[in-house]
Amino acid sequence: MIERTSFVRARTPANKERRSRDLLDAAHHLAETGGVRTVTLTAIAEKAGVHVSGVRRYFDSREEIFLRLATTAWSEWAEDLSLQLDRSEAPDPARLALIVARSFEARPLFCDLLGHAAVSLERQVPAACVLAYKLAALDAVSLLSDAFHRATPALSPEAGRDLVASATALAAAFHQYAHPDTTLAQLYATEARLAPAHIDFEPAMTSSLTALITGLIATRQGQSDLPAHGIPHPQRSGD
Amino acid sequence: MIERTSFVRARTPANKERRSRDLLDAAHHLAETGGVRTVTLTAIAEKAGVHVSGVRRYFDSREEIFLRLATTAWSEWAEDLSLQLDRSEAPDPARLALIVARSFEARPLFCDLLGHAAVSLERQVPAACVLAYKLAALDAVSLLSDAFHRATPALSPEAGRDLVASATALAAAFHQYAHPDTTLAQLYATEARLAPAHIDFEPAMTSSLTALITGLIATRQGQSDLPAHGIPHPQRSGD
Repeated sequence: MIERTSFVRARTPANKERRSRDLLDAAHHLAETGGVRTVTLTAIAEKAGVHVSGVRRYFDSREEIFLRLATTAWSEWAEDLSLQLDRSEAPDPARLALIVARSFEARPLFCDLLGHAAVSLERQVPAACVLAYKLAALDAVSLLSDAFHRATPALSPEAGRDLVASATALAAAFHQYAHPDTTLAQLYATEARLAPAHIDFEPAMTSSLTALITGLIATRQGQSDLPAHGIPHPQRSGD
Repeated sequence: MIERTSFVRARTPANKERRSRDLLDAAHHLAETGGVRTVTLTAIAEKAGVHVSGVRRYFDSREEIFLRLATTAWSEWAEDLSLQLDRSEAPDPARLALIVARSFEARPLFCDLLGHAAVSLERQVPAACVLAYKLAALDAVSLLSDAFHRATPALSPEAGRDLVASATALAAAFHQYAHPDTTLAQLYATEARLAPAHIDFEPAMTSSLTALITGLIATRQGQSDLPAHGIPHPQRSGD
C-alpha cells in the first residue's frame, strides 16, 4: 500500500523511456563518484527516484544497467577519438599515443567499466544485452581502426584493430592502478616501498602506447606474416 | 551442536597451517575449473572439508583467499618466466613475445586473478593482505625486468618494468575475451558478426607483445626522455 502511494508508475512509452534514462543517469553519476564496484541497485533506484521494486521493469539487474552504460561509452569514446584523430596533423607515435591516452583520461567511467565488463558484467546479463555490447565494441573498433589509418597511414587498419584491443586492455588495468581505494591509498602514503606501484594514468598510458604504436608500425612493415589476433586475413596468404 | 560433532577444530599450528592450505587449494581448484567469479566461500569450505563458519578463523573472506592465491601466482609466474628467459638464446622480439605469451597461457588462473584483483579483490581485504600482494607484484616486476634485460640487453630494466605492467594488463583482458561464459559462447556460435571479438589467447598476446617489445626497444633508444610510468628516474635527467 505504501508502495502504491509513494511510487507512480510510468504508464506511457515516453515516461518509461524517461524513467529508464533516469536510472542510467543515476548509475552513471554514482559510479563516476565512487567507482562501479561500490554502486548498488538500491542506491541507483533511490537516486533516480524509482522504487527499487520498480527497477526490474526497466532492467534485469545492476549489471545490465552498467553494461548498457558501457555500450554507450564505447560508442561515444570511439566517435570522439575518431574526430580528434581526423583533426590531428600527421602525428608521430608519441603524439598519437598522447591523443589516445587523453581520450581515456577524459573518460574515467569508461575505463572503470572496461575492467568490470570483461570479468563480470557481460557474464551476468541476458544474451541480447551482451550482443548489443559486443556489437557496439566491434563498431567502435572498426571506426577507430579506419581513423588511425587515416591519421597515420603506416598503421594498417589491422594494426589499428590490435591497437584498440590493446589500448582498452591497458586503460582498464591502469585506471584501477591509478585509482586506489582508501586502504591502498593509505598504504601508498605510508609505505615507500609501494611507490612504483602507484602510477599516474596519463603518463603510464602514453608511455606504453608510444611503444605499442611504434612497434605496430615497425612490425607490420617488417614482419607482415604475423597473425593479427582473432581476425582472419586470407588476403595476406600470398605475402 | 551438529557443528561441534561434525567439525573438528585444528588445534595445533601444523594443523592450522594444513587447514589454511586446504582452503587455498580448494579455491585454486574450483576457480581453475569454473572461473574466479563463480566460486563462493561456501563452495570453497565444502571442497576443503571445513565448515563454512570455521573459514573465518583462517581468512576474512573469499576475496582474501583469492588475493592470497594471486600473491603466490605473481611470484611463481615471475620465477618460472625468469628461468625461461635465462634459458632463451638472444631471442628477437617475436620470440621473446612468444615466451611471455606462453608463460601466461600456462597459467589461466593467474590471468583470471589479475582481472579480478585490480577491480575488486584488492579493494575488499585487510591492509596487510593488500600490502603483501603489492609487494609480491613489485618483487616480480624487479625479478623480471632484470631477466628481460639479461635476455635482451636492448631492453633496459626500466623498459622491462613497463613491459611487465603492460603484459599483465593485456593478459588480464585477453584471458577474459578468450574465455567466454555459456551465454557469450552461444552468441559466438550463432552470430557471425561477433567473430572478430572471439580471440585466441596465445596468438593475440604474442601479436600485441611483439609490437610492444619492438617499440620498447626502439623508443628507449631513440627517445630516452620519455617518462616511464610511476618510476622516478633522476639518473636520466642528464640525457
